Amino acid sequence: MGRQKALLDKLAQTFQIRSLLVRQALAECLGTLILVMFGCGAVAQLVLSEGSHGIFLTVNFAFGFAAMLGILVCGQVSGGHLNPTVTFALCMLGREPWKKFPVYFLFQTLGAFLGSGIIFGMYFDALWEFRKGSLIVVGENATAGIFATYPSNHLSLVNGFFDQMIGTAALIVCILAIIDPYNNPIPRGLEAFTVGFVVLVIGLSMGFNSGYAVNPARDLGPRIFTAIAGWGSEVFTANDYWFFVPIFAPFFGTVVGVLVYQLMVGFHVEGEARDRGEAVAREEKDRLKLSNVTEKNEMA
Amino acid sequence: MGRQKALLDKLAQTFQIRSLLVRQALAECLGTLILVMFGCGAVAQLVLSEGSHGIFLTVNFAFGFAAMLGILVCGQVSGGHLNPTVTFALCMLGREPWKKFPVYFLFQTLGAFLGSGIIFGMYFDALWEFRKGSLIVVGENATAGIFATYPSNHLSLVNGFFDQMIGTAALIVCILAIIDPYNNPIPRGLEAFTVGFVVLVIGLSMGFNSGYAVNPARDLGPRIFTAIAGWGSEVFTANDYWFFVPIFAPFFGTVVGVLVYQLMVGFHVEGEARDRGEAVAREEKDRLKLSNVTEKNEMA
Amino acid sequence: MGRQKALLDKLAQTFQIRSLLVRQALAECLGTLILVMFGCGAVAQLVLSEGSHGIFLTVNFAFGFAAMLGILVCGQVSGGHLNPTVTFALCMLGREPWKKFPVYFLFQTLGAFLGSGIIFGMYFDALWEFRKGSLIVVGENATAGIFATYPSNHLSLVNGFFDQMIGTAALIVCILAIIDPYNNPIPRGLEAFTVGFVVLVIGLSMGFNSGYAVNPARDLGPRIFTAIAGWGSEVFTANDYWFFVPIFAPFFGTVVGVLVYQLMVGFHVEGEARDRGEAVAREEKDRLKLSNVTEKNEMA
Amino acid sequence: MGRQKALLDKLAQTFQIRSLLVRQALAECLGTLILVMFGCGAVAQLVLSEGSHGIFLTVNFAFGFAAMLGILVCGQVSGGHLNPTVTFALCMLGREPWKKFPVYFLFQTLGAFLGSGIIFGMYFDALWEFRKGSLIVVGENATAGIFATYPSNHLSLVNGFFDQMIGTAALIVCILAIIDPYNNPIPRGLEAFTVGFVVLVIGLSMGFNSGYAVNPARDLGPRIFTAIAGWGSEVFTANDYWFFVPIFAPFFGTVVGVLVYQLMVGFHVEGEARDRGEAVAREEKDRLKLSNVTEKNEMA
Repeated sequence: MGRQKALLDKLAQTFQIRSLLVRQALAECLGTLILVMFGCGAVAQLVLSEGSHGIFLTVNFAFGFAAMLGILVCGQVSGGHLNPTVTFALCMLGREPWKKFPVYFLFQTLGAFLGSGIIFGMYFDALWEFRKGSLIVVGENATAGIFATYPSNHLSLVNGFFDQMIGTAALIVCILAIIDPYNNPIPRGLEAFTVGFVVLVIGLSMGFNSGYAVNPARDLGPRIFTAIAGWGSEVFTANDYWFFVPIFAPFFGTVVGVLVYQLMVGFHVEGEARDRGEAVAREEKDRLKLSNVTEKNEMA
Repeated sequence: MGRQKALLDKLAQTFQIRSLLVRQALAECLGTLILVMFGCGAVAQLVLSEGSHGIFLTVNFAFGFAAMLGILVCGQVSGGHLNPTVTFALCMLGREPWKKFPVYFLFQTLGAFLGSGIIFGMYFDALWEFRKGSLIVVGENATAGIFATYPSNHLSLVNGFFDQMIGTAALIVCILAIIDPYNNPIPRGLEAFTVGFVVLVIGLSMGFNSGYAVNPARDLGPRIFTAIAGWGSEVFTANDYWFFVPIFAPFFGTVVGVLVYQLMVGFHVEGEARDRGEAVAREEKDRLKLSNVTEKNEMA
Repeated sequence: MGRQKALLDKLAQTFQIRSLLVRQALAECLGTLILVMFGCGAVAQLVLSEGSHGIFLTVNFAFGFAAMLGILVCGQVSGGHLNPTVTFALCMLGREPWKKFPVYFLFQTLGAFLGSGIIFGMYFDALWEFRKGSLIVVGENATAGIFATYPSNHLSLVNGFFDQMIGTAALIVCILAIIDPYNNPIPRGLEAFTVGFVVLVIGLSMGFNSGYAVNPARDLGPRIFTAIAGWGSEVFTANDYWFFVPIFAPFFGTVVGVLVYQLMVGFHVEGEARDRGEAVAREEKDRLKLSNVTEKNEMA
Repeated sequence: MGRQKALLDKLAQTFQIRSLLVRQALAECLGTLILVMFGCGAVAQLVLSEGSHGIFLTVNFAFGFAAMLGILVCGQVSGGHLNPTVTFALCMLGREPWKKFPVYFLFQTLGAFLGSGIIFGMYFDALWEFRKGSLIVVGENATAGIFATYPSNHLSLVNGFFDQMIGTAALIVCILAIIDPYNNPIPRGLEAFTVGFVVLVIGLSMGFNSGYAVNPARDLGPRIFTAIAGWGSEVFTANDYWFFVPIFAPFFGTVVGVLVYQLMVGFHVEGEARDRGEAVAREEKDRLKLSNVTEKNEMA
């Protein structure tokens, strides 16, 4: 095993990247790839098997646990955001520098692009068999919805915008509670599981309108992939340029989510911690003064 | 990032609320909002999609994991009751002061009201599309059941009262076991998960009669919302004033649950702990006496 | 709150039971009650709603998580067996005294009896509505299967015996692994969750033949209840006295399970621990001898 | 209990195996037996009940939680691979010696063989009842698919190979992240749970093409069993010798998975740890030098 060990060490040193930001970007890319590969894979399984190998619940489970696994794979390196709105929320709160935002957004979108590409390859024969290979964007036998999200027939653009806003706000409120340093109720190491349940619940209750993207990268990456892979530019123009909604609405939702959490819980637990800290500091100061006085007295 | 930091600190100090009870009330409000938003959202998804995006099991999962998330969001601040019967049980056992009960009840109901309002907005187009916007309280195409609970056809008021009593008693027995300080089997931080499973199981096995409200706030808040939003006063008068049942029966169930748990497990583990404490104290005392005697002897 | 406190303390002291075995029996009774109440409740919900409020999977989830909750409620007091075969296995391995076996068996059966009674009361109207209140034991509209287990049409008695044996053996192997003091892979406090998953998996894969009782108390208690509640003595005579199978086959399965686990894993990890202990003891002894020698030498 | 204790000790010493490799092989055998028994049991329940006692989701849950339980039963002894590709990946990374690979492969296959045999016995009557006992390998009423995997009609061999490769690569990436000593995000003892979720998610999203074997032992063992038990040699020749695919493709997938994880995350976290270690060592050295210098100076 000596020679193998040496080879492995050499490989490790050759390919080791030392820039932290590049490593984090790669990790986010892999994490989002896992999220989209498993998530869109479940949609593909549901659609292409025409219900024999899945129900909507399996898609919810898949996205939830895929988020969990994606976070586990990259969390120690990059924080495991997998979602530009999460990066955005943490930048807003001053917990991540703003310069990370575009880098993470880009690599999350890249990961989502690659993840949907893997699923396209994996279900290539099944896609071909399904409606004889015609790649339809909207309507009865549409398959573009396997990768990116499209609104249900009943949904107007305004309601769709609200839908994505609320979904993302709910996601952000829960995530902020889970990772709040002053309100941390989760045993260390289980944050990923809990975020997985958040994604699961959002799918169980907010998935009917437009498939709960609540993540610009998860939607944009696969959409670009489908445009290239054969569905064409209709993936952008369909449903009155719907594709704008899951890109922009989530960021408005993030602002709402951050405000709601901070105003109703966050500022107060943080403030309490600060007050306690100040009280301790004041006592300390008083004691110092006192001891100075005592010392002076003793000197006198 | 210096200016952002300063802005955030200023915001935090401006909006920080220092009254503990107000903060707890706000937290309960947010927690119950999350419970009802996700829970009723799942019912909406099931009803409005006519089964394509949900089955009854998804509603059970949604309420279970929504309870989990609601508790996680507010648990560190307010205890995460989300349910007046839980507050009531803890007041009965002397673990919370009675004055908290009306405040929590009010804000839990407010949270449930707001949560159902969010779902109403989110599924506005879908509600309009479903049966052309006629908001029906009972019968074939009823949509009021998305928000508040209504009995099945087979259910009499007496059986319904028993149903809500038993459901709540089961909830309270399990919650008391989970949070019993003398019988604490759960790793710290996982109580919320476990309570989520309790809510899930109640839905799996006690949901057929009347939709397992087992929570006066979860039922009353959305019912008031539907009365205002267009379903009208029929939401109160329907099914022989059914709305009284999920408000009052749960409190009777709470009394039953507290008695069953305390008589079969609680008093004994508590007593054992007290006995042990007393034994230690007695030994201590004996030793003191003994040492006094010894001292006297030695003095003599 | 002073007066309430005093009242509670008085109550606690009045009702405190000091006999450990009685307390354990009561706890087992409550735990098994919870198991059967939630489990059979889910079967009732599935059968009586004719599939609108349940699928077979919901029954599996309910029994799994009900086992989890039952163990959590009584585990700290009685060990949370909820199943005579678990008690039997622990007695076989010398980890519980044999005298506990009949007591636990009795109170587990009593708890199962009470649990099915609660479900009978809760779904009284629904049972009456279903097939106009005729309580049928076997055949098309049978409702006795809500409470006790009955074999599918394809099942012979011999295959049924094997089915119950294998199911119980699988249960026991997994439980022994989970609680093995020399092979304990589960974080403390999560044993109940893991056992819940064992019960869930058994239902997912071994539930088709005869409803996976794998627990004599869970089957006998509800069967006695149904005999009394109106289904009559046919619950015992049906299917060639099937009721004998889920009472006796599980104990044979227990022996198989204990042997398989001990021969393939248990004896070896235990032996390893003992060998290590002996090695330490021998070293200790050698050191003592050595030091004696040294002392003698020094003395000399 | 004295005599029982003595008997148990004697038994334990008689049957204790002291060779570590044999014990590990036995443990892997039992673990894989549990995986296949529960997993294939769920497929049997789904197929033989014709959907009344299962849906595809229940098979996913069963394989996921069966993997979890199998790992729990044998993990402390053998590492809980249950899958030759996992052993292969760990050998590639130099964390297990290569000589373990054939032994583990053999005993994992044996365990899978035995597990499918148990399910064959358990559902013997049901298999006989289903299509009057004709054991068909492919087509409408095929039952061979209960035990080993067969491709869907739409799947070509090339796509099938890619399917198994990607599935296994996804499995290996997730498992490497879960057990990476430099990137360990999971609380100790919960690895088995997390791997269970990985298997579940793979089933939810990659199960439609050919039933997600992603494990040569899980597929080969039961296939050999079916060849012997009456389905005949067609189990090997069917679908253009499909049986080669789930044996060989997973190992190619393992190589891909190891490369992806190591290049995108593994090498960097490992390297960082090494760099930190070297930095510490260098500082140590500098300090030593410095102190030498100081000492010399002091001497001078």
